[in-house]
Amino acid sequence: MFDNLYVALLHYPVSNRNGETVTAAITNLDIHDISRSSRAYGVREYGIVTPIIYQHQLIDRVIRHWKHGYGGEHNPVRKEALQLVEVYETLEQFKEHIFKQHNIKPVVIGTSAKLRENSRSFKDVKEMIISRNSPIILAFGTGWGLTLEGFQAIDFVLRPIRSFATDYNHLSVRAAVAIVLDRLLGAQESDCGAA
Amino acid sequence: MFDNLYVALLHYPVSNRNGETVTAAITNLDIHDISRSSRAYGVREYGIVTPIIYQHQLIDRVIRHWKHGYGGEHNPVRKEALQLVEVYETLEQFKEHIFKQHNIKPVVIGTSAKLRENSRSFKDVKEMIISRNSPIILAFGTGWGLTLEGFQAIDFVLRPIRSFATDYNHLSVRAAVAIVLDRLLGAQESDCGAA
Repeated sequence: MFDNLYVALLHYPVSNRNGETVTAAITNLDIHDISRSSRAYGVREYGIVTPIIYQHQLIDRVIRHWKHGYGGEHNPVRKEALQLVEVYETLEQFKEHIFKQHNIKPVVIGTSAKLRENSRSFKDVKEMIISRNSPIILAFGTGWGLTLEGFQAIDFVLRPIRSFATDYNHLSVRAAVAIVLDRLLGAQESDCGAA
Repeated sequence: MFDNLYVALLHYPVSNRNGETVTAAITNLDIHDISRSSRAYGVREYGIVTPIIYQHQLIDRVIRHWKHGYGGEHNPVRKEALQLVEVYETLEQFKEHIFKQHNIKPVVIGTSAKLRENSRSFKDVKEMIISRNSPIILAFGTGWGLTLEGFQAIDFVLRPIRSFATDYNHLSVRAAVAIVLDRLLGAQESDCGAA
């Protein structure tokens, strides 16, 4: 486990299809899929960030079912994953929570389907995680991705995921989280990353 | 685009949590997420395989909305992804369909969270795809994965995905498809697979 590694799923401020700033709604499978990927790749905590308090209650109900209720008894490996989930109103709140654990401010690394200024390679970010010098938040936007305002709260941005086969860059956020974690922390078949 | 590459999502014969053979139900986001990942990584067709005819109607309705209806007008990039989706009753039917396109029988490559006999590396499978010598189906089981009977219909199995951080191997099928496609066909940052 990387006790310095956090994943954030941000529902505000994100763009909709028309480029307008919106608060995206929670998707139930974002809770499940991203907690399972986080658990598999050794993430310490998966923070779901939304300012809509009504949605906190929804998420809490799902989590309670798995952490303490029938779901967890019935399916203990799912419980193990959902134990990583916490809910925050803002990224700032999540950062404060992490600061209290480590006494060091976390570095927030954004993700984007587009190449942006201030981008870092997967190799550099992998080294940052493994060095364990400071806590790190990997931040993912829902909807059509973080707005420019959203990117201002971020220290730097990971290079976009690309296939060499196409230029289609509309992966689901669940797929993007899985791929980013695997690129950073997947066990490779050889030193030279055969896969 | 790899005109020899196909993804199959198998809902039968798969295991449930108790190791019993079942037909898993379709999950709506399996249609969306896996078609988007398939589109991004240059897959020619994404075949959803289930013997339950009632579920074919459900999938058809979703696809029609995006391929021909309001959904596609409203969100053309989603339409582009969902155009890859077809539905089959059995893996055998999907194989016959592919045989008709290529006049060569497809090689079926299974996936598994466990290391199995007759496994191949990501590197070997990547070379098979790029060589374009024969059509290839990457086959993913839903539920708790393909049964032993299911694996008998498969030519060989890709090595399991692993993180070097944990031994938790309960990824969602949506995450597993995304990671497998990225390992096989993701653009790397350097020749030596920096990520």
